[in-house]
Amino acid sequence: MTAPLPYSAHDLETFSARVFRHYGLGEDHAATAARALVFANLRGLDTHGVARLSGYAGRFERDLVDPRPPMTLETRFGWSASVDGANGMGPVVGQYAMDEALARAEAHGIGVVTARRSNHFGAASFFAVQGVPHGCITMVMSPASRSLAPFGSREPLFGTNPFAVACPAGRHAAWSMDMATSVAARGHIRLAARHGRPIPEGWALDAEGHPTTNAERALEGVMLPFAGAKGSAIAMMIDILGGVLSGSAFGGDIRDMTRDFEAPQDVGHFFLAFKIDAFMPLAAFNGRMETEIARLKALPPAAGHDEVLYPGELEARTATRRWSEGIPISPEVLESLKAVAGRAGVALPVPLASGPATSVS
Amino acid sequence: MTAPLPYSAHDLETFSARVFRHYGLGEDHAATAARALVFANLRGLDTHGVARLSGYAGRFERDLVDPRPPMTLETRFGWSASVDGANGMGPVVGQYAMDEALARAEAHGIGVVTARRSNHFGAASFFAVQGVPHGCITMVMSPASRSLAPFGSREPLFGTNPFAVACPAGRHAAWSMDMATSVAARGHIRLAARHGRPIPEGWALDAEGHPTTNAERALEGVMLPFAGAKGSAIAMMIDILGGVLSGSAFGGDIRDMTRDFEAPQDVGHFFLAFKIDAFMPLAAFNGRMETEIARLKALPPAAGHDEVLYPGELEARTATRRWSEGIPISPEVLESLKAVAGRAGVALPVPLASGPATSVS
Repeated sequence: MTAPLPYSAHDLETFSARVFRHYGLGEDHAATAARALVFANLRGLDTHGVARLSGYAGRFERDLVDPRPPMTLETRFGWSASVDGANGMGPVVGQYAMDEALARAEAHGIGVVTARRSNHFGAASFFAVQGVPHGCITMVMSPASRSLAPFGSREPLFGTNPFAVACPAGRHAAWSMDMATSVAARGHIRLAARHGRPIPEGWALDAEGHPTTNAERALEGVMLPFAGAKGSAIAMMIDILGGVLSGSAFGGDIRDMTRDFEAPQDVGHFFLAFKIDAFMPLAAFNGRMETEIARLKALPPAAGHDEVLYPGELEARTATRRWSEGIPISPEVLESLKAVAGRAGVALPVPLASGPATSVS
Repeated sequence: MTAPLPYSAHDLETFSARVFRHYGLGEDHAATAARALVFANLRGLDTHGVARLSGYAGRFERDLVDPRPPMTLETRFGWSASVDGANGMGPVVGQYAMDEALARAEAHGIGVVTARRSNHFGAASFFAVQGVPHGCITMVMSPASRSLAPFGSREPLFGTNPFAVACPAGRHAAWSMDMATSVAARGHIRLAARHGRPIPEGWALDAEGHPTTNAERALEGVMLPFAGAKGSAIAMMIDILGGVLSGSAFGGDIRDMTRDFEAPQDVGHFFLAFKIDAFMPLAAFNGRMETEIARLKALPPAAGHDEVLYPGELEARTATRRWSEGIPISPEVLESLKAVAGRAGVALPVPLASGPATSVS
């Protein structure tokens, strides 16, 4: 059978947390890491969901990630902090740093926190939307392992560095953008490779620098930045803020979590959050956001579109549906979960009774 | 004759300042506005250089911009301020706000300043690079008048909202990105229209929503965001930070400086600057930036490229050359400067003796 089966978000989160507990994480950290994965699945970002569990487990099994990282931070101003992630899991270090940024925003109106010696932290929007209940505008960036050819070059230097921004949107679900600086997220290519599917032209070059639609060859070659020089500049900005400034690896030195088992990844992150009421009352901002969104949604759709969506709208809608109908897990991802379940000695949840789920992809 | 003629940057700046003085600006403000224009020309951003002088003059002549704006600011935290630009010239309000952001960064380590009731402020990088001698990383954003169709729509809502970021780069010229969120800057289409040249396909739709290569029709139609949903999300982020949050016009309400003479533009801006030494010593950051740039420049160039450039490198090189060889002014732009010179009663400078200049465009 090849149809995806629906699993409850709660069950997948409990399962993932148990897996992380098996690998030695404390209860809070295991819960955070599990929540980060299932957040991605709920919002339709399946490339950053439980499909990653096997990869994360593999790095614990090779002692490449510290399940109990002695994280520390240095601070020079009330609003700033540099976190040493002590080679903890990315979602764990990211949450520690994001909590610090939000605490600083509550105390001083703004918080900016860099983190070094971390690992792949999952979906950047997992952290960015956490500023919304605080009445904050948040920015989150993180460099990734070498895969993206800078504009003007045919060899990679940067990663598919994600850039996420979120803010409240009045009565609407949070405004939330979360983009890779490649034409497509590397996770999409990884997923295509796992499913043996081709990728569109223009996404990547193979190892010899030629355009390819073969996902496996693309993973060995280079990704192309979106919009040429523009995406390339944004990728470099993220390498500077998340890598150069944080004290972590930068300029191509971050190790690939799925292919390089020599040493820890040394990923860096950048988190910025500030209170909207530093500039205007939150209620006024929310009212203006409702106007902004109403104007956007009143525009006539272009050919091929049923409606105009604001960033984060589709993701929130998908989360609502998947929360009740379940998260569709493909047979390939299910196989990887079964393998992890076996290695960790944790029972895999059973699918929801309702039958095959609808995939958004 | 149709070849551009070279003019000295100093002469163009003095000329522009005299024009602004004619329209009632105080000496400091006239000098700032002139410097902003010539900065753009020096760096090869001719769409935002003295080609704009005639447009700026036209709005003064129609009493749509206050040459002596009673600018004020409100502040809630030491690091934050909301500027009321009182309908001053964009570069004047922008400089006032940027000075505040940098002063706050010097005092508190970080400064974030929004501005409302401003006007078109020229090249965003003019402000962003001012953080470099302060050892700051800076971000500058500003929404522009309605011209860009959000992803999924065939009608415009956002502008070609610029996003500029700058930081020190050790012994190298500043790292500096400055991009429009459209496929191409609207100024390029304006310049093409003035010269009667076509534009590439994929830049714009005409007023009926069809692709066009006619620059005039593109100006009446809509611009397309770069990279589809990604550029559209960044354009909306800029509308939120520079428009919704600043208290200025947003969601399509900013008036077109060259076509709408009913009322002031009500442009908003967003400036963020923070000290690098809040996170690591500036010298360490500079050393790491030199490594980053060395690695980028050591990459093999792609077909059609002689070398790999970092953002701001070409602009700095162009500025060095134009500083000594002069700024090439096209016959069309020269005509507009002659007209402004006549209306303002200011003598136009003479071209440099060395003959026709080389254009970078």
